Amino acid sequence: MKLVIANKNYSSWSMRPWVLLKHYGIAFEEEVILFDHFQPGSQFSAQAGQISPTARVPVLVEDDGFTTWDSLAIAERVADLHPEHAVWPRESKARARARSLAATMHSGFGDLRRLCPMNIDCDLRAVGQRLLATEPGLRADLARLEALWTPELQAHGGPYLMGSAFGAVDAYFAPVAMRLTRYGLPLSGACAAYVQTLETTPAVQAWVADALAEKRFVPDDEPYRASADEPAR
Amino acid sequence: MKLVIANKNYSSWSMRPWVLLKHYGIAFEEEVILFDHFQPGSQFSAQAGQISPTARVPVLVEDDGFTTWDSLAIAERVADLHPEHAVWPRESKARARARSLAATMHSGFGDLRRLCPMNIDCDLRAVGQRLLATEPGLRADLARLEALWTPELQAHGGPYLMGSAFGAVDAYFAPVAMRLTRYGLPLSGACAAYVQTLETTPAVQAWVADALAEKRFVPDDEPYRASADEPAR
Ligand SMILES: N[C@@H](CCC(=O)N[C@@H](CS)C(=O)NCC(=O)O)C(=O)O
Ligand SMILES: N[C@@H](CCC(=O)N[C@@H](CS)C(=O)NCC(=O)O)C(=O)O
Repeated sequence: MKLVIANKNYSSWSMRPWVLLKHYGIAFEEEVILFDHFQPGSQFSAQAGQISPTARVPVLVEDDGFTTWDSLAIAERVADLHPEHAVWPRESKARARARSLAATMHSGFGDLRRLCPMNIDCDLRAVGQRLLATEPGLRADLARLEALWTPELQAHGGPYLMGSAFGAVDAYFAPVAMRLTRYGLPLSGACAAYVQTLETTPAVQAWVADALAEKRFVPDDEPYRASADEPAR
Repeated sequence: MKLVIANKNYSSWSMRPWVLLKHYGIAFEEEVILFDHFQPGSQFSAQAGQISPTARVPVLVEDDGFTTWDSLAIAERVADLHPEHAVWPRESKARARARSLAATMHSGFGDLRRLCPMNIDCDLRAVGQRLLATEPGLRADLARLEALWTPELQAHGGPYLMGSAFGAVDAYFAPVAMRLTRYGLPLSGACAAYVQTLETTPAVQAWVADALAEKRFVPDDEPYRASADEPAR
């Protein structure tokens, strides 16, 4: 099968299913539709619109052409197609809880997403310090992350959210880890350790390596820099 | 089990799991946390925050106290707990497609949601006409709805999105049907018929009857009226 994604440096939704497939060693081809801009009539939308009615990525295309779009629906599709992997926890309540957490990420954290777009190849710590001081919505999102993560890390003993195994819910928070480290946003003890665990997960490191090699500056994804050569501010 | 919801007239996310449980005749108690306002420090947030780290509803509380929050995670939980009901289609690709559609609603349609908040007990057709003329984002959301629905209605023959049976994906679009009819937003042939089907589904009608009986005017949910006695504009 094939996973259609966008630029690895910027595309947080694409990262989730890619990391999930990679983690389980499920073979897939990758097709990248590059971001140009986010105004109506973009080349990106035209291309993405040919494979999904949402004109967005990620999209999973199976060998017979069947498509699943949306990162969360793709996670469920991978779980359905690969019951040999615990994409969601095997235990019923842990599974429900993992889905609550993933669905909360899927539909929320608006301030974190808007103010701190993913930009793996950029040191945004100065920006993060400023935003922390000026944006109560961002501080509230960080507090909510801790409120979501802490009980699970305690209940299941880490290092991943639902215990010893990486799963869809961790893939869901992998791009969040990217934002936290790049923008230097602080979390407390157990949550900081979890971010570190995500950063050092091989599938995540594989995505990061590709993102760092990409070197394609997209102005519409760069609220804090005018070019790749200047520091973010 | 117990489903914690907010005002039936306004709370579109609450409507989804309620209608789903009702449709299958799954017994549940209902607890309503009434909206007061959406500024920080609301009574609503304080109460909802006691049962979910998101401080939002809906929340499903099982008899042993286990909670599942977020409407989409609740749909999955109901599917897990009640395999005797086809909450998602039994056929694997139809199931994936239903999840793509529900997930798209879960994370998108920002303009439809923002400009046309659900308000079952209100005639908003004059407002809808104005918004249609002035808001390209709303027109784009309606076009996207048609692009999502039409192929499924054609492929499965209706009257529901995935064929003859109502399921989670239809519950997901039930509040959308409420907006379309209240704001008088037009859709073409097959999609208009689907909206009609949703409106006349008994579980949806049961929610609507409760919403109409509610009669609690919440100013923060009423961008188009200053009181229940005046026409919306
Ligand atoms: N809910 C969708 C969101 C997908 C999404 O917004 N993808 C971005 C890339 S990370 C996109 O395609 N943006 C293009 C656009 O907004 O025009 C998912 O989870 O897959
Ligand atoms: N993604 C959540 C959204 C829940 C949500 O936003 N619920 C609204 C009521 S319809 C709420 O609790 N709003 C209160 C607030 O935003 O403070 C879900 O699908 O359940």
